[in-house]
Amino acid sequence: MSFFKRFKNKDPVALSKFITFVENQSKDYQKFLSRIYPLTGNAYRIGITGPPGSGKSTLTDKLVKKLSSEDKSVGIVAVDPTSPFTGGALLGDRIRMQTLLSLKDVFIRSMASRGCSGGLAKTTKEVILVLDAFGKDYIIIETVGVGQVELDVVDNCDTTLVVFTPESGDAIQTMKAGLMEIADIFVVNKSDREGATRLVCELDSFLDLRREKGKASKDGWGFPVISVQATHNVGIDSLWEKIKQHKKFIQDNGILEAKRKVQIRSEIKRLMENRIKEITEKRVDEYMDIEETVKKVLAGEDDPYSASERFLKVAKLL
Amino acid sequence: MSFFKRFKNKDPVALSKFITFVENQSKDYQKFLSRIYPLTGNAYRIGITGPPGSGKSTLTDKLVKKLSSEDKSVGIVAVDPTSPFTGGALLGDRIRMQTLLSLKDVFIRSMASRGCSGGLAKTTKEVILVLDAFGKDYIIIETVGVGQVELDVVDNCDTTLVVFTPESGDAIQTMKAGLMEIADIFVVNKSDREGATRLVCELDSFLDLRREKGKASKDGWGFPVISVQATHNVGIDSLWEKIKQHKKFIQDNGILEAKRKVQIRSEIKRLMENRIKEITEKRVDEYMDIEETVKKVLAGEDDPYSASERFLKVAKLL
Repeated sequence: MSFFKRFKNKDPVALSKFITFVENQSKDYQKFLSRIYPLTGNAYRIGITGPPGSGKSTLTDKLVKKLSSEDKSVGIVAVDPTSPFTGGALLGDRIRMQTLLSLKDVFIRSMASRGCSGGLAKTTKEVILVLDAFGKDYIIIETVGVGQVELDVVDNCDTTLVVFTPESGDAIQTMKAGLMEIADIFVVNKSDREGATRLVCELDSFLDLRREKGKASKDGWGFPVISVQATHNVGIDSLWEKIKQHKKFIQDNGILEAKRKVQIRSEIKRLMENRIKEITEKRVDEYMDIEETVKKVLAGEDDPYSASERFLKVAKLL
Repeated sequence: MSFFKRFKNKDPVALSKFITFVENQSKDYQKFLSRIYPLTGNAYRIGITGPPGSGKSTLTDKLVKKLSSEDKSVGIVAVDPTSPFTGGALLGDRIRMQTLLSLKDVFIRSMASRGCSGGLAKTTKEVILVLDAFGKDYIIIETVGVGQVELDVVDNCDTTLVVFTPESGDAIQTMKAGLMEIADIFVVNKSDREGATRLVCELDSFLDLRREKGKASKDGWGFPVISVQATHNVGIDSLWEKIKQHKKFIQDNGILEAKRKVQIRSEIKRLMENRIKEITEKRVDEYMDIEETVKKVLAGEDDPYSASERFLKVAKLL
């Protein structure tokens, strides 16, 4: 039986194989993606983000166990901003994987963002598509902290959780981190610790503004703040209920479809940009002595702006 | 007198005007950059990064006051991952700016990364060039937390500090955040708090590996860990000494020149990629009905991979 057939028959070995295939961007992987594309669109995507140390991994694990107990199949994509210098995943993740893999229908993939430009974007989206096509009911995308990565998460997820702890720092810092506007559900983890009540209050008063705005438009989502203690499995049921409520909410209000459209649009653009980048690099190597140019720039005899324009013209891209 | 002349005569109003000009990517801003490029290359770039709440802003402020007291001119670029939804800077930064602006020869610019792809990269590098050309002795680039942004910082800075606090979470989390390998100097802020000594020890034992490696090659930088209490101005002098030591170290070992070359190379590539993106977007609008395509993809009648290839061919970019 061909691997593709095995994939369609939900063989986890074939899934694993195809994910590696896509991650490595092996020859014709885009053809494969275009072939499986019609099978996608059924998985529900949950993003989990928050500052380092907020307990995202533990929360994900508990949520996955909950989903698994309700016979949902789950794919987890954990994106780790592992340094481009070491390139490896950390021990903790490997230990973690083994615990989760003992559950039925759970697939976990730990990916390093590797610092390449658009790190998350480059293959995470593809891996999500593969899991979707494979027939996972839910895909959880877990990613650390702050920055571009989070905005990519919001592009890719249907429900986004942001996890805080009483130790995460005060509300101003949280706002600074830009996490507030991307979340649908706010999770205060380690809620037995000092400062948890204050954090919930701060979040609530900050969110009141958004809630007011939501009421004005008719799609008034309440932006709930849920307290949990992931390590002790406290609050996970309520959190899961809230996620289901949000799912229903965005389905009923046409928001899910709108999200999907945005995802597709940005996907097409991204694919084109990646291809164009590839082409550029090839042509640059063909037409440009970059070391020589760098030397001239360093010596003050050339500048990057002129060099760039010149080469684009020579490479017939302008 | 022309603005350009005023800029060359170190008129801060002209500096401010040109930075805005570059930030907005106003018409012909690249010509302007190419004109000022020969004036650049003299400013020393210090990157300050670390998790949200670690006290980067306070540390920057104290360091700037130190530099200012030694008659160095300083430009500060504070990159804030402000949400793309609100787009604004936060009150705290405005208050801060006023304090610093009272110092002679200090220029501070707070930029929102705005979530655009390559947010930091897109205009921060240009702003740094303008400050450099203006004749600033030091440029401090301060940026929050984790991710792509930090790797851009390392590309742009000559000395990079990573700031931790005893509250930053344990060493594994810190390593996970990928901050360890980009730092030249490690700063433990709020060193009077509980857990500071343990953090210094953890950092030290983690760094021993890198220090060993450094000894094997002849460019053995010690990766010092400096304890400070930024709010109380404790340890700032030692930190400043270490920065100067690192500066001398990379100058004496040819590392600074190598860094500059890498910077120029990535700069040329980045400029080309940006231009190509522009061209792509223009041609996409010209050749492609993207809304129609999105609908078809959503209906399962098309897929982003095929659509992307098709359009690149039609737009004569392949």
